[in-house]
Amino acid sequence: MPTLNVLTEDDLIAAIALELGSAPHWLRAGIGDDAALWKTPRAHLNVITTDMLVDGVHFRLASTTPGALGHKALAVNLSDIAAMGASPQIAVVALGITDVVDEPWARAFYRGMADLARRHGCAIAGGDIARTPALTIAVTVCGDVRRSDVRLRSGARPGDVACVTGPLGLAAGWLRHVQMHGDDAAAADAVTGNDGAGLVADDALRLRAAYETPSPRVTEGAFLGGASATHALMDISDGVSLDGARMARASGVDLVLELATFRRWCEERPLRAFGSSALDLVLHGGDDYELLAAVDGRAYHHLAKRFRARFQTALAQIGRFERGSGEVWVEDQGVRSAHTPRGYDHLARTR
Amino acid sequence: MPTLNVLTEDDLIAAIALELGSAPHWLRAGIGDDAALWKTPRAHLNVITTDMLVDGVHFRLASTTPGALGHKALAVNLSDIAAMGASPQIAVVALGITDVVDEPWARAFYRGMADLARRHGCAIAGGDIARTPALTIAVTVCGDVRRSDVRLRSGARPGDVACVTGPLGLAAGWLRHVQMHGDDAAAADAVTGNDGAGLVADDALRLRAAYETPSPRVTEGAFLGGASATHALMDISDGVSLDGARMARASGVDLVLELATFRRWCEERPLRAFGSSALDLVLHGGDDYELLAAVDGRAYHHLAKRFRARFQTALAQIGRFERGSGEVWVEDQGVRSAHTPRGYDHLARTR
Repeated sequence: MPTLNVLTEDDLIAAIALELGSAPHWLRAGIGDDAALWKTPRAHLNVITTDMLVDGVHFRLASTTPGALGHKALAVNLSDIAAMGASPQIAVVALGITDVVDEPWARAFYRGMADLARRHGCAIAGGDIARTPALTIAVTVCGDVRRSDVRLRSGARPGDVACVTGPLGLAAGWLRHVQMHGDDAAAADAVTGNDGAGLVADDALRLRAAYETPSPRVTEGAFLGGASATHALMDISDGVSLDGARMARASGVDLVLELATFRRWCEERPLRAFGSSALDLVLHGGDDYELLAAVDGRAYHHLAKRFRARFQTALAQIGRFERGSGEVWVEDQGVRSAHTPRGYDHLARTR
Repeated sequence: MPTLNVLTEDDLIAAIALELGSAPHWLRAGIGDDAALWKTPRAHLNVITTDMLVDGVHFRLASTTPGALGHKALAVNLSDIAAMGASPQIAVVALGITDVVDEPWARAFYRGMADLARRHGCAIAGGDIARTPALTIAVTVCGDVRRSDVRLRSGARPGDVACVTGPLGLAAGWLRHVQMHGDDAAAADAVTGNDGAGLVADDALRLRAAYETPSPRVTEGAFLGGASATHALMDISDGVSLDGARMARASGVDLVLELATFRRWCEERPLRAFGSSALDLVLHGGDDYELLAAVDGRAYHHLAKRFRARFQTALAQIGRFERGSGEVWVEDQGVRSAHTPRGYDHLARTR
C-alpha cells in the first residue's frame, strides 16, 4: 500500500504516539527521546523479558486482526513477568513491517497493545521500526517485584502440589480447528469439530479468544508470588508437558502429572468436541499462558480457597512433585508410566 | 546447514549460556528462567531502549562476520543509553534466525556481543530465538542514571555550542566504498576511493571498523551527563543533519551548522579519498554513533579541555544553537543558507 511509503519514520512515530495517549506521570521521558526513563520502587528488583513473534511462525497475518496481534505480542511478555511474581511497568516494541502495514494498521496494532497495557498498569514507552520480509514483533517488558515475592522455576520441592491458574489446551484447540476447517472457520457462525462432534459458535469464539487474545495472569502471578507457600512459578506457554519438565529439571525433583484433571477438561465444553485428541491438546498444545506453580502440599487447599475467592476460578491441581532427578511421570487411574515431554520448540520448522 | 535443525531450543540456549560465561553477582536470575532480575542503585532512574537490525536493510550477512554483527547489534543500543547520560546494566536479545545460522555461528555472534557488553559492565541476561525469513536482531538494553545526570534532546538553549564526540562520515564512507567496489573491497589489501584518489589499506580498515564495530560513547555520555554545562544530549545514528534537526525541533531553538569542522574532516584521511562527495557523507551519512551535545557557550572551552584530557580526542564544535523555532541553517565561510535535513529514514526502501 502506498500510504506508508510516503510517510517518514518521524510521521509514523507521531501517529503511534497519538494512539498510545499521554504517558503516565511516573514516566520521565518516552517516545521521541533516545530512551525512556522510569523509576523502580525502593527495595524492589527489576525484571526484564523479551519475546519475538514472526508472521508464518507464531501467527498468520491473513487470519488475525492488527488489534489482536498487538494484544498477543504484549500478552506473551506480560505472562513471563507474571511468572516471576512481578508486576509490569514498561514495554518497548521493535516492529519489523512489510508492505501490508499502513498507518491505520499500525494504529490498530498499537491500540490493541495499549488497551492491554493500560489494564495492567504498564506504559508503552518507545521502540523501533524497520522493514522486514515478514512481519516481526519483538516486545520487551520490564517490571518490578518485591525481593521476597520473587519466584523462580527452580524452587519446587518434594511434596509440593503442581497446579495451574486455568484450563489448558484451548489455544491449541483453536489451531487444530483452523487446521481442520481452514481460515473460513474464523468467520463461521457455527462450526463442526473433530469426529463429527459439534463445536458451537460460543465454543469456537472461546477457543479463538484463548489463542488470539490470551489474558496474561499478572494479578494471579503477583498473588502467588506473595504467598509463602508458593515455592516455584513459571508460565507454560510451550505446553505443560515441556514446561513442566523444565520446572522439574531446574528444581531437581520429579513431576508426576495426574491425568484426572486433564481428562475432566477434555470431557467438558469446548474441548469435548475434539474427542480422543483433546488430551494431546491439553498436555502438549502450548500457547496457554497460564501459570504453573509448585505449592507446599500442606498449604495448597488453603491457598486454592483464597485463590478461588479472589479470582472466581480454580487453582487446579494437575500433579505433584516428588523426590527424583528431574523426570516426568504420568499417573492415570493409579497406573504410573514414564512421560516424554514434548511441546512447542521454537526452532522446529513446524508444530 | 543441518546442525541447527537437530538442535532443540533448550540445547541452543545452553550453548549460548556457555558462551556468555558466568553472570555477574548482581544478576539475581537470568538465562533459563522466564525473566531476568536485577537491582537499580538507589536514587537512580532506569533507562530502556530497543533497536532492530535486519539482514538486507541494516547489514548484509554475506559481507560481515557473526562476531561483528553481535558487536554492532549491542553497540547501537549502548549508544542510545549513552545518549541519556546513563550507564548500561542489562541486555536481552530477540534473535530471528535463518538456515544460515548454525551453532558455531550463534556462538561467535554472542561472543562478539558479550565482549562488548563486558567492556561496558553490561550483562546479557536472556532473550528469545525464533525462525525468520531474514536474519533479524532486536536487542533491548536497560541502564541506570543519577536523576541529576539525565540529559534529554529537548534541553538545548540559545547560545549553546553544538558539539560531537568524534569525527563523522566514516561509517557512511565504508558503505560508499563497498557500493563502488563491491564486496571484494572488504578483502582487498589496498583499495581505491572516488576520483581516482587512493584509499590505503589502513584507511579502509578504519572505515570498515567504524561501520562494523562502532564504539558506543558510553563513558563519554556519562561524562557529559555529569557536567552541568551539558544542556542536551542525543546520539546521531541517523546522521547529524537529521538528528541535529530533531534536537533543534525538540528544544524549540535553531541549529546553525558551521561547515568549517566538517570541511576539515573531509580534507583529512581517510575521507579525503572521497573528494567532493565527502561532505555529503559527513552531513547526511548516518551510522556514526557519536553523541551530539548542546553545551553552555560560556563553559564549552573548559569542558572541551577536560574532555580531551579524559578521552584523548576533541569534543568538536560543529555549530551553535540560536533563538528560533527549530530550523536548521548551514554557515559556510560567513554565508548562511537554509538547510534541508536528510538522513537515514528507517521506512525508506533504500538509503
